[in-house]
Amino acid sequence: MSGIGDLDALAPEKSRLAADLEELASFTDPDEAGWTRRVFSEPYRASRAWVRARMRDAGLAVREDDAGNLIGLLPGTTGAPALVTGSHTDTVSRGGRFDGVVGVLGAIEVARRLRETGTRLAHDLLVVDFLGEEPNAHGVSCIGSRTIAGLLSSGYLDQLDGHGVPLGRALESAGRSPSDMLRAAWRPGEIAAFVELHIEQGPVLQRRQTDIGVVTAIAGIERVMAAFTGRADHAGTMPMTDRRDALAAAAQAILAVEQIGCSQPDAVATVGDLETAPGALNVVPESARVWAELRSPSAAWLGTARRRVVQDIADLAQVRGVDVELDWLNDQDPVPTTVGVQDVIAAASQSLGRRWTPIVSGAGHDAAHMAALAPMGMIFVPSRDGRSHCPEEWTDLDQIGAGVHALAATVASLDGNPHVGALAT
Amino acid sequence: MSGIGDLDALAPEKSRLAADLEELASFTDPDEAGWTRRVFSEPYRASRAWVRARMRDAGLAVREDDAGNLIGLLPGTTGAPALVTGSHTDTVSRGGRFDGVVGVLGAIEVARRLRETGTRLAHDLLVVDFLGEEPNAHGVSCIGSRTIAGLLSSGYLDQLDGHGVPLGRALESAGRSPSDMLRAAWRPGEIAAFVELHIEQGPVLQRRQTDIGVVTAIAGIERVMAAFTGRADHAGTMPMTDRRDALAAAAQAILAVEQIGCSQPDAVATVGDLETAPGALNVVPESARVWAELRSPSAAWLGTARRRVVQDIADLAQVRGVDVELDWLNDQDPVPTTVGVQDVIAAASQSLGRRWTPIVSGAGHDAAHMAALAPMGMIFVPSRDGRSHCPEEWTDLDQIGAGVHALAATVASLDGNPHVGALAT
Repeated sequence: MSGIGDLDALAPEKSRLAADLEELASFTDPDEAGWTRRVFSEPYRASRAWVRARMRDAGLAVREDDAGNLIGLLPGTTGAPALVTGSHTDTVSRGGRFDGVVGVLGAIEVARRLRETGTRLAHDLLVVDFLGEEPNAHGVSCIGSRTIAGLLSSGYLDQLDGHGVPLGRALESAGRSPSDMLRAAWRPGEIAAFVELHIEQGPVLQRRQTDIGVVTAIAGIERVMAAFTGRADHAGTMPMTDRRDALAAAAQAILAVEQIGCSQPDAVATVGDLETAPGALNVVPESARVWAELRSPSAAWLGTARRRVVQDIADLAQVRGVDVELDWLNDQDPVPTTVGVQDVIAAASQSLGRRWTPIVSGAGHDAAHMAALAPMGMIFVPSRDGRSHCPEEWTDLDQIGAGVHALAATVASLDGNPHVGALAT
Repeated sequence: MSGIGDLDALAPEKSRLAADLEELASFTDPDEAGWTRRVFSEPYRASRAWVRARMRDAGLAVREDDAGNLIGLLPGTTGAPALVTGSHTDTVSRGGRFDGVVGVLGAIEVARRLRETGTRLAHDLLVVDFLGEEPNAHGVSCIGSRTIAGLLSSGYLDQLDGHGVPLGRALESAGRSPSDMLRAAWRPGEIAAFVELHIEQGPVLQRRQTDIGVVTAIAGIERVMAAFTGRADHAGTMPMTDRRDALAAAAQAILAVEQIGCSQPDAVATVGDLETAPGALNVVPESARVWAELRSPSAAWLGTARRRVVQDIADLAQVRGVDVELDWLNDQDPVPTTVGVQDVIAAASQSLGRRWTPIVSGAGHDAAHMAALAPMGMIFVPSRDGRSHCPEEWTDLDQIGAGVHALAATVASLDGNPHVGALAT
């Protein structure tokens, strides 16, 4: 905390935060329930003009980079590589008011408080509203952070939406140049550190009656589609012992996946969808497909769990005389946060008198990509009952304020650390 | 067998049967795979004109009754109440060539052989091609037999198809009068007995290397839709122990139903369809619906099984914190065949040197409704590998011939029994 004396003075002005949250929430697709600002939509476009104005009002020099990220600059005194913070303002369909938004509006409030208190950072501070973090119609998430982390490939630009339109063309329609995007990556070392404030989206902080989650890792995701093929028989005339029931095999697979997800506290495993055919009341199901995912901060666990899924499904299919094919997709490797940044967040929370706890993020975040560029950390605030991606998503203003204050203290602390760019991972 | 001396002489002319089977199979919806003659369709209408001609060629006096059944009369010598045999010629979508058809073409061949051999029955013989036995777009099966058994109610006529058209209107469009149909019931005792020849549609006869199945009962059917409601949560952030996963509950229900079906050799239990929502890869399923059915010749078993399904599903839903609602439909009570008719079929098969075995019918049949009118029996012939309701449905011509011969011998034997109308149930 060298250089920044009074952390208490950086406390956010909560009524202003509340007004910002309310105003941003007014940009929503009127045809959808809850709050909906999908990337490329008109409500999203309008909301970002509003975000840009808020950044300008906060005294930031605002630009939109070739990746479509809105970036507000608060210049530092030394020209040292920038400290970067931010999140996203797009939502899922029928989502909530806090996912992503807290991290963007919170970062703007931090910049405001720094200026209002006359606190000058040595490093530049960049406040970022990343383009399209939520999975879009093309199945691509984190467009903005992926791009500046140098992780956007032409394969992503070729991904089609439900109407056969590739992501590249959708970006062009939104005024972006895909070829410029592929050249928009930042250089590792160009920035000093990245910190993201975000709602937990799970129930752990509430259950532990804790203000701040210090994220230790962002879980990796392995996805699999299992396609079972049995035999369609008359459901009245084919004895139980002679059946090759694809749906019963799929049911067993669902429970096997669930059990594997229960084998480690930080891991989860979910079957999110199932389709079966022919779907007639009096026909033994011939085929069934299940879509499952495994998440864990541990690459070793993911490898073991994947092998267990393969083995369990092969075994049950063999016993039932049902054929099965598995189609795996490694969606994301686990990304640990930087231990040095965890320590700074924990110490900042402690010095503000906040209860904090280490926590794993089961959800993906822009921070996972930014970790390719610099030391990275995340600050979580509680989600009521763990609800998220739904209209019931809620975090109390006091809890948001505590998170924003922790973010300000973390930024100030990182700014005072002469070795911030070399923090131990 | 009084009165009919030479049962061997009644053996069918198999080449003629084969030609009939092949010709009837040529009436099929050209836009569907396999063989498809749905009730009310053009291929069905055309095929029944052909069936009517075959009845006429066989020397039968043909009429179409108010229920839409095609009925061919071979007059007897005494005016005694008729012996009735027949089945249906409609198919499921993408069905086979033998389901129902064997019983109609076989009955016509029996009539032909009776005339060709100069065999005069004392009783009238009625050969019936029942209207629409397969479940139609309105979810109603056995229109023709249900009607003449007095079991058609206005409730059935109100049943809507997927376009909101009631069955009554569809019948009108096909030239039928629904009000006449409600008055078309036959009187119990008006006929002497009913016998139906049909393919087994299951693998039991093939496995027992048996020619003839003497049906002891037609299984009752209890159907249930179970609707599970859990909670949609982020699949990455909600710990396994805090979930209310509707799809996992449904999976457990599928396996519970399967296990209950395995608890008695003649029973089966099947989950034929499942739907879940929202069906996203990264969302814990909020809702799931499964459609299940229980079949057994035993009303007692059906009652017990139904209570077990209720209890098992209530238990698993409670453990998982998932709500569930069950919607039951008693589709059909078990119908035992008449023991006296079973005995006649068994004796006839024996005297023809055929291997026979008692067997339960897991599928519904027109015979189940005809049992309301008179003593009833069914003769099964083997289905290769138990396949039915699919293009692979197959019965060898020799096996069909054996069944038709057994039907002829059964009719002759019933004709010789002075107490046929009072056969012990």
